Amino acid sequence: MYRYLDEIKKENDIKKIPEDKWPVLADEIRDFLIETISKTGGHLGSNLGTVELTMALHLSLNLPNDKIIWDVGHQSYTHKLLTGRREGFETLRKYKGMAGFPKRNESPCDSFNTGHSSTSISAGLGYVKARELKGEDYTVVSVIGDGSLTGGMAYEALNNASKLKTNYIVILNDNNMSISENVGGISKYLNDIRTANTYLELKENVFNRLMNIPGGEEVVKGIRKAKSTVKSLVVPGMFFENMGITYLGPVDGHNIRNIMNALSDAKRIKGPVVVHLITKKGKGFAPAEKHPARFHGAEPFEIATGLPKSPKTASSYTDIFSTCMVKMGEREKDVCAITAAMPDGTGLKRFRITYPDRFFDVGIAEEHAVTFAAGLAAGGLKPVVCIYSSFLQRAYDQIIHDVCLQNLHVVFAIDRAGLVGADGETHQGIFDISFLSSIPNIEILAPKNKWELSDMLKYAVAAEGAVAIRYPRGTAYAGLEEYRAPVERGKAELIYDESGVALLCLGSMVKTGEEVRERLKSEGIPCSLVNARFAKPIDEDMVRFLASKHDLIVTLEENVISGGFGEHVLDFINEDGLNVDFLNIGIPDEYVEHGNVDALKKEIGIDADSIFDRIIKSLK
Amino acid sequence: MYRYLDEIKKENDIKKIPEDKWPVLADEIRDFLIETISKTGGHLGSNLGTVELTMALHLSLNLPNDKIIWDVGHQSYTHKLLTGRREGFETLRKYKGMAGFPKRNESPCDSFNTGHSSTSISAGLGYVKARELKGEDYTVVSVIGDGSLTGGMAYEALNNASKLKTNYIVILNDNNMSISENVGGISKYLNDIRTANTYLELKENVFNRLMNIPGGEEVVKGIRKAKSTVKSLVVPGMFFENMGITYLGPVDGHNIRNIMNALSDAKRIKGPVVVHLITKKGKGFAPAEKHPARFHGAEPFEIATGLPKSPKTASSYTDIFSTCMVKMGEREKDVCAITAAMPDGTGLKRFRITYPDRFFDVGIAEEHAVTFAAGLAAGGLKPVVCIYSSFLQRAYDQIIHDVCLQNLHVVFAIDRAGLVGADGETHQGIFDISFLSSIPNIEILAPKNKWELSDMLKYAVAAEGAVAIRYPRGTAYAGLEEYRAPVERGKAELIYDESGVALLCLGSMVKTGEEVRERLKSEGIPCSLVNARFAKPIDEDMVRFLASKHDLIVTLEENVISGGFGEHVLDFINEDGLNVDFLNIGIPDEYVEHGNVDALKKEIGIDADSIFDRIIKSLK
Repeated sequence: MYRYLDEIKKENDIKKIPEDKWPVLADEIRDFLIETISKTGGHLGSNLGTVELTMALHLSLNLPNDKIIWDVGHQSYTHKLLTGRREGFETLRKYKGMAGFPKRNESPCDSFNTGHSSTSISAGLGYVKARELKGEDYTVVSVIGDGSLTGGMAYEALNNASKLKTNYIVILNDNNMSISENVGGISKYLNDIRTANTYLELKENVFNRLMNIPGGEEVVKGIRKAKSTVKSLVVPGMFFENMGITYLGPVDGHNIRNIMNALSDAKRIKGPVVVHLITKKGKGFAPAEKHPARFHGAEPFEIATGLPKSPKTASSYTDIFSTCMVKMGEREKDVCAITAAMPDGTGLKRFRITYPDRFFDVGIAEEHAVTFAAGLAAGGLKPVVCIYSSFLQRAYDQIIHDVCLQNLHVVFAIDRAGLVGADGETHQGIFDISFLSSIPNIEILAPKNKWELSDMLKYAVAAEGAVAIRYPRGTAYAGLEEYRAPVERGKAELIYDESGVALLCLGSMVKTGEEVRERLKSEGIPCSLVNARFAKPIDEDMVRFLASKHDLIVTLEENVISGGFGEHVLDFINEDGLNVDFLNIGIPDEYVEHGNVDALKKEIGIDADSIFDRIIKSLK
Repeated sequence: MYRYLDEIKKENDIKKIPEDKWPVLADEIRDFLIETISKTGGHLGSNLGTVELTMALHLSLNLPNDKIIWDVGHQSYTHKLLTGRREGFETLRKYKGMAGFPKRNESPCDSFNTGHSSTSISAGLGYVKARELKGEDYTVVSVIGDGSLTGGMAYEALNNASKLKTNYIVILNDNNMSISENVGGISKYLNDIRTANTYLELKENVFNRLMNIPGGEEVVKGIRKAKSTVKSLVVPGMFFENMGITYLGPVDGHNIRNIMNALSDAKRIKGPVVVHLITKKGKGFAPAEKHPARFHGAEPFEIATGLPKSPKTASSYTDIFSTCMVKMGEREKDVCAITAAMPDGTGLKRFRITYPDRFFDVGIAEEHAVTFAAGLAAGGLKPVVCIYSSFLQRAYDQIIHDVCLQNLHVVFAIDRAGLVGADGETHQGIFDISFLSSIPNIEILAPKNKWELSDMLKYAVAAEGAVAIRYPRGTAYAGLEEYRAPVERGKAELIYDESGVALLCLGSMVKTGEEVRERLKSEGIPCSLVNARFAKPIDEDMVRFLASKHDLIVTLEENVISGGFGEHVLDFINEDGLNVDFLNIGIPDEYVEHGNVDALKKEIGIDADSIFDRIIKSLK
């Protein structure tokens, strides 16, 4: 089907393609990616932007001996193609299929797993020091986007890179974007380099003028020889040079030969070097160039139009949150919203348009986001911080140290809590109840349906101290509309009051609990259903009530068992001396891979069938 | 006693002191601090270095309306003195006494609690945006050390500062130190500014030469007018200017008038401004100038000599770890050690001296430290990362995402796990079992005594995957020497095998368990004592064995109850259907303030007496 791509069966096969056919291969790769992702969904824009970058790396390096570390890793599709995983694209991001991120267990050419941002330089430095100490010989390249450079970890690593005495290459893949527009001083700085004002302007205006002055030539020589500050006259990447890192660039990131030349130069440097490539996200596919955020992580789409194949009909929890925040902003003038580089993903885009002054996109900087919110709260505002569950792991200490210790009123809107599906292990939001529960002075809520998310958000903004609301990815549950008791601190909601089995369900698991209850009822087993609402504090009165008239209490949550809601309920049952059997349903102590959420739930035993079976077993 | 210090009863009183007496006041403050801290212990060096800085701030600002945010906060003693808290120094860092860090509940002049590093710019930005949105008028100043600038959070915040359109002042208190020597590219860069090579060299060599050339004057004017790159000719702080932040300095940080002038200039800038002060840690007290690490957090000392009043006799766990690591380094050539700016505190200084190539001080950069270790492990080395429990909270996501997900062999030596005493809330190491237990693929150990720490470290280095060993601050327990069964994965150690009550104790609580057992025995209650060794995985066989012959199992741990060891044991008891009463002893759901550890344990009910009482109550 593809003239040159068909010849690539494994790593290094690309080296057999003649140079004049490289552009053809690049086109074929783009066609393949667009074709494939239009069917499977996946990260399109970032991969279209890194076709030539990846080809140049594969042409210049010797895999798997040399190590490439992909920051975030969503841009590794071409790398997967060039390392013999073309068939894998049929099952991309599917249950038991190929992952959308680098995986060491998938190929020896994947040297480090990624998924979260800004880790690649730290990992790369680890490889470099291991190479030195073990006396080995290979090249280490970290590929990091300008968006990932807004994360503090990347800076911590750059600060440490300066000490290196052996070669280490950082490719700065600069597309002037995070998932949405990039933010902050560094972004502006890179943009200045990109538009080449400084270097050209200087060279043309100042040096030329000097050269025309008697004796000026000597001065130019003197400047060229002078120390670091003056070096910025001829080096556009002074920011990196100031940190002790050699800067090469900017280089056209879509010109393979130019990139290879820069890599060849970079390899000769005994120390850390940044190669600055200018790329275009979505390159070669007009809809992705035009709507980079939409094509960051795309659903299956029509190639001709770029429009989604199955347009969304039902509202997601994110949509509900988005609408609530806009209304809330109108009523409450002190409410402000914070995102870490996810204005689209979190649904805060509408809040940004309506209340630009009260909206803050801080870049991929979850630590800063949370402490910044603490500062806003100390200053008298009501910040709502919206961060995905798996990324909020980055700010655990800030929640402990900056928010809860001072009992500041910060609302955490935790999107993507629970299983997220296709993005897999790194993105499953399955730890937040555990890590948040350990912290004093915080309330943790989870809504059963779309209306409850809205009610909980209002409750949270009106409350005091830290309040976290976790809600899952995907369509918001629209059942149980008639159950809408006011949200009160630490109070659960009794939905069906019977005897026998009591299902105490948190958030998304209320819906599952309904299904389990149907199954139990059809077997003649009476069953109460409770919407827990609060993972912390737990409703002790409700637990006592349930213990008093049921044989078995079952907690259901979409979070790991360890440190989760169920353990806290059990601890209370034990402490209070309640006499009731207890079954703890949650995610077992393992990472959960990518795939369809229903399949994953079945595999780990938190779907209605599995839960029903476990309850029956428990009753015997 | 003090001519001028005695006149200062509350904030702003300093403004009554005439300028020519400022140096006298500074001397008095230093005398007071040295005198006080020599008795109470505390942070000396950092406070001696910031006397003039703090005086200049108090002279220039209007407290409590204006906001000062002290990064880390250990340097806030002069600030406490100048805001009417002189009496508090008698109880500094004591139980129910004045805290060693800023506390909002202590004074309205403390605008933000700190304790961990690199948070002050994020918090400051929060205050600035709140001021803008609420239409208020006050000055916001964050005071951050050059050491704290190695933390990624500070960089995330600087990156966001560039957007400000209103005034915000960051004082960079540059003493060329973290607790120990500072590290990395930024440190070197600041040092270049400090030694003023660039600016003076340039000004004298280049500009003067230009001025002597016909037409050169025009060129100099042109350069001065040219855009950002060229600006570095006249601006030493180009690193900050590149990020869109105005730089002022360097300024002598011990000259009050100079600092005030710089602050006055800084206040006029509509945007973010860094004022770079050069200070000397320990200034004015020779022993502290000479041994800055020792006088960072000092024990009570003799003023004449600077030597500790009560020289340490018994070994601390840190000492044991220190010795073990040196021996380990000899036997295992792949073992390397990582610290985040704590070579002294962690005891890794000796490893550094012995194996400099295998020692890494990454600065105050816990996130990088952990992912760097993951990279070292991926490259075939055996990294031991030593980070205090409360600071490891910063790297929760990196442990989940970079170490455990890939099942990499990284050893975590978690010092200061449990209550730490005088440093208080921000430094108590009481969450680590909870946050680590939630992560798949990790083992968590805690030694009962000094020998066991050594055995566990050997076990951990020989094991696979992630292994964490938590051990407390202070003297290592030297009892139970005769119990030294080999450390086996997930196996507890049965010390006294009786009936009645089974005490299942983790780490430091084994010693407490012995005391509790003595009390129980003296009341005629038989009691078994088990050293749990592993908080994860728990020894299920041992729990079954204990359940089979005891009426009550009691878990004892120095960690919060929520998500701790006890909850996991209870979860197993429930799941396995064991028939035994259970009592969960740990730290309640609250922050624990500063003070003597014994007093704190009593207050929260985890001392031997309280535990005895609770067991008796439970048996009834």
